Amino acid sequence: MTRRELVLRVGRAGGYSAAFSIMRSMGLLAAPPAVPEALRITPGMGKGTKVAILGAGIAGLVTAYEMRKAGFDCTVIEARERPGGRNWSVRRGTKIEFTDGTSQLCDFEEGHYFNAGPARLPSTHQTMLGYCKELGVALEVEVNTSRSTFLESDDAFGGQPIEQRQAINDTRGHVSELLAKTIQQGSLDQQLTSEDRERMLDFLETYGDLQPDHTYQGSLRAGARQLAGAADLTQVTRDPLPMHALLDANFWRSLMFEESFDMQATMFQPVGGMDRIPYAFAQSLGSVVKYGCPVQEIRKTSNGVRIVYRERGVPQSLEASYCVCALPLHIAKRISNDFAPRVRAAFDQVNYDSAFKIAWESRRFWEQENNIYGGISWLTNPNIGLVWYPSARIFSEKGIVISGYSVEPKQFAPLSMDAKLALSRGAVEKLHPGRSHELAKPIYVCWGKIPYNEGSWVSRGQGERENAEGAAYYNGPYKEFLTPDDRIVFAGDHCTHVIGWQEGAALSARRAINLIAEHVRKA
Amino acid sequence: MTRRELVLRVGRAGGYSAAFSIMRSMGLLAAPPAVPEALRITPGMGKGTKVAILGAGIAGLVTAYEMRKAGFDCTVIEARERPGGRNWSVRRGTKIEFTDGTSQLCDFEEGHYFNAGPARLPSTHQTMLGYCKELGVALEVEVNTSRSTFLESDDAFGGQPIEQRQAINDTRGHVSELLAKTIQQGSLDQQLTSEDRERMLDFLETYGDLQPDHTYQGSLRAGARQLAGAADLTQVTRDPLPMHALLDANFWRSLMFEESFDMQATMFQPVGGMDRIPYAFAQSLGSVVKYGCPVQEIRKTSNGVRIVYRERGVPQSLEASYCVCALPLHIAKRISNDFAPRVRAAFDQVNYDSAFKIAWESRRFWEQENNIYGGISWLTNPNIGLVWYPSARIFSEKGIVISGYSVEPKQFAPLSMDAKLALSRGAVEKLHPGRSHELAKPIYVCWGKIPYNEGSWVSRGQGERENAEGAAYYNGPYKEFLTPDDRIVFAGDHCTHVIGWQEGAALSARRAINLIAEHVRKA
Repeated sequence: MTRRELVLRVGRAGGYSAAFSIMRSMGLLAAPPAVPEALRITPGMGKGTKVAILGAGIAGLVTAYEMRKAGFDCTVIEARERPGGRNWSVRRGTKIEFTDGTSQLCDFEEGHYFNAGPARLPSTHQTMLGYCKELGVALEVEVNTSRSTFLESDDAFGGQPIEQRQAINDTRGHVSELLAKTIQQGSLDQQLTSEDRERMLDFLETYGDLQPDHTYQGSLRAGARQLAGAADLTQVTRDPLPMHALLDANFWRSLMFEESFDMQATMFQPVGGMDRIPYAFAQSLGSVVKYGCPVQEIRKTSNGVRIVYRERGVPQSLEASYCVCALPLHIAKRISNDFAPRVRAAFDQVNYDSAFKIAWESRRFWEQENNIYGGISWLTNPNIGLVWYPSARIFSEKGIVISGYSVEPKQFAPLSMDAKLALSRGAVEKLHPGRSHELAKPIYVCWGKIPYNEGSWVSRGQGERENAEGAAYYNGPYKEFLTPDDRIVFAGDHCTHVIGWQEGAALSARRAINLIAEHVRKA
Repeated sequence: MTRRELVLRVGRAGGYSAAFSIMRSMGLLAAPPAVPEALRITPGMGKGTKVAILGAGIAGLVTAYEMRKAGFDCTVIEARERPGGRNWSVRRGTKIEFTDGTSQLCDFEEGHYFNAGPARLPSTHQTMLGYCKELGVALEVEVNTSRSTFLESDDAFGGQPIEQRQAINDTRGHVSELLAKTIQQGSLDQQLTSEDRERMLDFLETYGDLQPDHTYQGSLRAGARQLAGAADLTQVTRDPLPMHALLDANFWRSLMFEESFDMQATMFQPVGGMDRIPYAFAQSLGSVVKYGCPVQEIRKTSNGVRIVYRERGVPQSLEASYCVCALPLHIAKRISNDFAPRVRAAFDQVNYDSAFKIAWESRRFWEQENNIYGGISWLTNPNIGLVWYPSARIFSEKGIVISGYSVEPKQFAPLSMDAKLALSRGAVEKLHPGRSHELAKPIYVCWGKIPYNEGSWVSRGQGERENAEGAAYYNGPYKEFLTPDDRIVFAGDHCTHVIGWQEGAALSARRAINLIAEHVRKA
């Protein structure tokens, strides 16, 4: 019997109070679950034990930060001249160099930036929020959803962008009207008790903002044709959008984005750029992080590891008791190494996605003309599927808007940069006719072409539902990176079920630390 | 033929492109409408003409601010020692004195505050947002909705608070399952074409996060029983809440709050307190505003008005060509006056609501233990219907939480302050068991007892829908305050269809200015 069946049976037999007692006792109504990966190291445990940490992304930084507290002697070896890995804020003076030799120099106005990698922190990512607090990184709200943003499909409404408040509330109105109709017709008499039929009709009247006769005639929730004002200016409701058009599959496919558990309407971002987080870690770690040091060899020794790297062209070597390998898997794979055959085999099964973002500096016409303050508009354009408005410095004159963020579609990837920028501009033009000429200073970041990343995140395969069950990656190579390879422990979001999030990187680091602590405790 | 019927007929005859052409041409798909009440005064028009403005709330301040720009000689007469009227931020040192002699002194920690009056600015209130920009008032996001907040009804779920994400998404799941069922049964074959039936089924699968067989078995959108984490920690979906309990009328009555056109998920607030706005106006106006000057008489003269007021006990008199009366109506009514009989009769028809707020200083247990960062929890408690969490200084140690904000219920009003505070504390205890003892330094603001207000806003009567049609006030005395009484023009949110909002006050001021400008132009 499933839990659901149990609750239903208890409910039928003992009434709803009994059912809720059961649910409470099963934790079904509990507060959000505690954060996993409590640290199991103790202060002083390290006693100067040497740890080599490969990569100064979030996983590497968290590892070093926590292990130092416990008395381990950590060295973070980082190929780049900056910390953060994929956590990278592009601003005036940032150079974007691709593996194919393409180079861009960002010349945004002073104070502007965009987050090329992670750009939002959900409230449930308590590990990362905790580090922000501990390190004094100031956070502000990132507006992830706005009812004033648009949905656009070329197949619906003649390609005209529709305000989300209109699409969402008219859809709910139509759905509510239809269901109310069927209840009144008696079609659900088998499924619902007469009490529930009455309750449902009352509910639908409010849910869909229906008329007393249970028809949907439009709702002010969907936006006003005329705003209320002084004297005779009363609010005038818009006529409802026809249901047939709202049911266009391309139109509604992004409608429920805001209900994703990870994608809340209001999220958080560090004031000034996401890279405030790695820089805060780096400041705390000081000389523990060695920049400009690409790893050349990962070797096992009798009692630990030897890491060979280059520092300004000069080969260096670091002996340590433990290694935490927090590099992207397909970067680690190419380094000369002594990994076990099972690990090498797993490397060969891993594929990386290549996500891109295109950002522009512009007057904030979306605020000034469309009441859009943050949030995302969605298009059915196969290449540029969204336009993401900035939450940073709202109400100021200019801002950085993202037009295009996704894994690069097959037909998009081979286009020239100019062609990609033109498509990006075109998406803005579609949503904001006559405004795309105000877009300036484009920056195109393609993670597949960024040295030392060459990808955005491990590919989880197709067809996964929101709960990520049945994904190719988890069922394939995943488990090999969870078990240490002698004294080498893997870290990174690819060692978690929180792929593509900083929270995953941090949790993986804490797990790696616990694995080493366990080994130390046994030794 | 209604517009809706027209669109439907055009759609049937000419297809959807034709329908959308029609809709576009009728403005049904237009961008948000332009802000009403464009000013029709010109620089220099005033030529030193004297204007007496009664009351330094938002309406009075906007009037003086704009008319000064046009060369009018303005004096704002304000009874209190501060600007803002109902726009009042309570912080350390604020004294709250009631008309019944009760007195409270706020001793919040430095930097904390709560907005006893207006506390949020919607993105559509372009007039107020414009003044914030013009006056340099820094704004930040006010989080008005959070899926992590609670719904609570004593009649549902045994009084256990339910996360809004769970209530909202389980409800949508059940509704979607029911509608899908009826479509599959063929019950809607009359209402829907076979194409739309297929489209609707596809839509409902995504809308409700249904299983492929169109049953609702719970959704990760409703929250996780276990969060995804490192290694084996996969997300575990909660079992769905039973539909019968979700249909409890008291439970869902606040569910759609976030879809109110004025109540958006993300709104704005000035950094540091809403009263940053009136203080910015006041700073610009300097000695134009006379504080501590209660009005004693409002007299008509042959060419204007004479206002008698007291300044530190001494009677003073001001002659002016025009008067803008921006006082609460029932305060104006009690002042000796020469108003026309139609205005006096209208005064007698006006009733004021008395809204209250109760605020507490506390550790931010709602953030630290419930992932609640702003937003509102709703209870069915007849006295304390909501708990409103602060958006100011999120992630800091302490914050000011509102427990109780509504028009005072009949049975609540006569209770002692201690009894009211106990009820307020009890509401927090219900939502956050074991935490209410952390609430300290309560402040109770009852607008019905605040001198020079004695009410929160004009009562619009019962039974109004969201579009405020058919409300008693608009159909009763309202229109009398729209027409000048000789040289006296009325202003205040009570002269608009935006009652209870600063935007209404500002729009009414701009309309009053235009009425005077018209008179000047004709003279």
